[in-house]
Amino acid sequence: MSVTAAKGFTAAGIAAGIKENGNPDLALVVNNGPRRAAAGVFTSNRVKAAPVLWSQQVLATGELTAVVLNSGGANACTGPQGFQDTHATAEKVAEVLSAAGTETGAGEVAVASTGLIGLLLPMDKVLAGVEKAAGELSEHGGEKAAIAIKTTDTVHKTSVVTKDGWTVGGMAKGAGMLAPGLATMLVVLTTDADVDAEGLDAALRQSTKVTFDRVDSDGCMSTNDTVLLLASGASGVTPARDAFAEAVRTVCDDLARQLIGDAEGASKDIRIEVVNAATEDDAVEVGRSIARNNLLKCAIHGEDPNWGRVLSAIGTTQAAFDPDRLNVAINGVWVCKNGSVGEDRDLVDMRYREVTITADLSAGSESAVIWANDLTADYVHENSAYSS
Amino acid sequence: MSVTAAKGFTAAGIAAGIKENGNPDLALVVNNGPRRAAAGVFTSNRVKAAPVLWSQQVLATGELTAVVLNSGGANACTGPQGFQDTHATAEKVAEVLSAAGTETGAGEVAVASTGLIGLLLPMDKVLAGVEKAAGELSEHGGEKAAIAIKTTDTVHKTSVVTKDGWTVGGMAKGAGMLAPGLATMLVVLTTDADVDAEGLDAALRQSTKVTFDRVDSDGCMSTNDTVLLLASGASGVTPARDAFAEAVRTVCDDLARQLIGDAEGASKDIRIEVVNAATEDDAVEVGRSIARNNLLKCAIHGEDPNWGRVLSAIGTTQAAFDPDRLNVAINGVWVCKNGSVGEDRDLVDMRYREVTITADLSAGSESAVIWANDLTADYVHENSAYSS
Repeated sequence: MSVTAAKGFTAAGIAAGIKENGNPDLALVVNNGPRRAAAGVFTSNRVKAAPVLWSQQVLATGELTAVVLNSGGANACTGPQGFQDTHATAEKVAEVLSAAGTETGAGEVAVASTGLIGLLLPMDKVLAGVEKAAGELSEHGGEKAAIAIKTTDTVHKTSVVTKDGWTVGGMAKGAGMLAPGLATMLVVLTTDADVDAEGLDAALRQSTKVTFDRVDSDGCMSTNDTVLLLASGASGVTPARDAFAEAVRTVCDDLARQLIGDAEGASKDIRIEVVNAATEDDAVEVGRSIARNNLLKCAIHGEDPNWGRVLSAIGTTQAAFDPDRLNVAINGVWVCKNGSVGEDRDLVDMRYREVTITADLSAGSESAVIWANDLTADYVHENSAYSS
Repeated sequence: MSVTAAKGFTAAGIAAGIKENGNPDLALVVNNGPRRAAAGVFTSNRVKAAPVLWSQQVLATGELTAVVLNSGGANACTGPQGFQDTHATAEKVAEVLSAAGTETGAGEVAVASTGLIGLLLPMDKVLAGVEKAAGELSEHGGEKAAIAIKTTDTVHKTSVVTKDGWTVGGMAKGAGMLAPGLATMLVVLTTDADVDAEGLDAALRQSTKVTFDRVDSDGCMSTNDTVLLLASGASGVTPARDAFAEAVRTVCDDLARQLIGDAEGASKDIRIEVVNAATEDDAVEVGRSIARNNLLKCAIHGEDPNWGRVLSAIGTTQAAFDPDRLNVAINGVWVCKNGSVGEDRDLVDMRYREVTITADLSAGSESAVIWANDLTADYVHENSAYSS
């Protein structure tokens, strides 16, 4: 159901020929109103792709009619020509939608791209693809749109929450370069709830902070991360602020979890719970440090409850803790107590895909959960051959 | 020649049975004077192994008679018992040396350990090993000492610089968990120059800052890093401060380079030169960010000049730069110019083990070099099976 689960939206996903293998590579999502409110969150990487610079700019109005997304090329580090290409793509979307009766300008069209950095897009194919996609827009097009934004994803990712007369739905792509500040991901969320741009922005920031910002597959931050939330108001219902934020968070959480579950080469999903931290920021800092420790990620891959690597990762942070009061559990077995040897490590069962590491800082009452993946030979293989 | 290249030192390396495979695992280095000045630099990890806590403490006097080192166990995260074990080891060294005529106390004996975190050492074997090593101390024992501190190292590492009548020599171990704030390494440097503790400390800190602190094999910081510099004064020569510092730096640089060259599973040594930075700190921050980017490390392994991953790593830093003025060369080919596509990437020849990445920030005139390794399936294999 994806982005067309909410009323007021149509979508399409087609093969424009940007990808050499002929797979779907261009998606279009259109908000048919009556409302066209929108909000967005983007990568915090200072090297931002042209479509990110563009979409940040157009979102200043708080309104979007459409989002066009392509896989097969990130249009990042492509200079002035790359930016012109993004602009031309938005112009083309506005032109074909206007011709079909949905009056709009390029300034109401967000653009998102994903794929290899440093290559210009084949614009003839992109522009022809926009025309083709516009011709296939449908209230049932959400699934196809979700498929068209895949890169190394093995499955497409969608999620929907329906409440009292209104819906939040969405799609996501992302399988590598997943790290806080967002992951290499493109996400489009839609809702038919009647919420203004400010309300969307608040709900979105609140949600991404504790979902997408807390997945860290490989510590690498993308140039293209984009999460958009569009509201059509077509349900005629204005939900309570909290109920709406919760629905958005639920969809974000579900999609974030799907990203981790499909991370490149991963064999384990690692849930890192940091508990009894002095502050939530401390908990997040410690969780990320654990999430990014390559030695630990390898150990988890080898089903080795190597808690020493957890402690050495905690030790690199500025968080409040006393080394002699640290406790660590792996899948519920407290293998480290008071900074030293705890329960028998042979009691830890790591056969299943999900592994939980609990780090108890004994320094307060705050907590956070970070999701990560293990480091595998498959990750190395996939990423040593990506652009060749 | 190692730690016995300088006059006034004896050393030994033996198999104490700490390692189950029977390989050498205990080294002893003794300063026979006349001077016994010493300085040390330790891991900045806040989770510090017992021997690090011990050695930091004994170095407060600026004097060391001996250093005892073991591989086969890090004695980290081992609680009060681990600290008592370190103390007992130093006591044993003082006892056997004193019995043999070198009057000393435990407070003049540094201890260094390396191996798996979270296991107590087999103290019966360690203490018997100390006796055995003391019986084999020799002016030619430097090589054997260097061999006895290996863990996953495939070769032992030594270096010597001889100047006008005085010498600086040393040994190092380390093959993984190499990251700033030192690498997982144990290093003992010796000199027969007549330099006091303060002079040793200054030369050592100055040197490690631009050598060991700038290797980043896998971004993981150890709990046990120790670099010691002992001076016997046996040459009777007091070198000029600069000449001495330069000799120490040369030995550190040589050993650091050997660590990178033998990093676990690595197939490439990556020299990351950050140039035209606003400050040296900026250059180091950018260099480390590039050094730790797993996607880039995989690309280098695949001999893929994927400069987009360099830019996305630079973009995560706080360094001063304008994304549109970044230039990146790989092995001398400027594949990225002004933040966009530069020279033809097919011109880049990456067949050899050493790969140079030059990141030009166009923001000033400072620079720094960081050494890193690629990420390989062998690294994953080695580190997913380490403790099993």
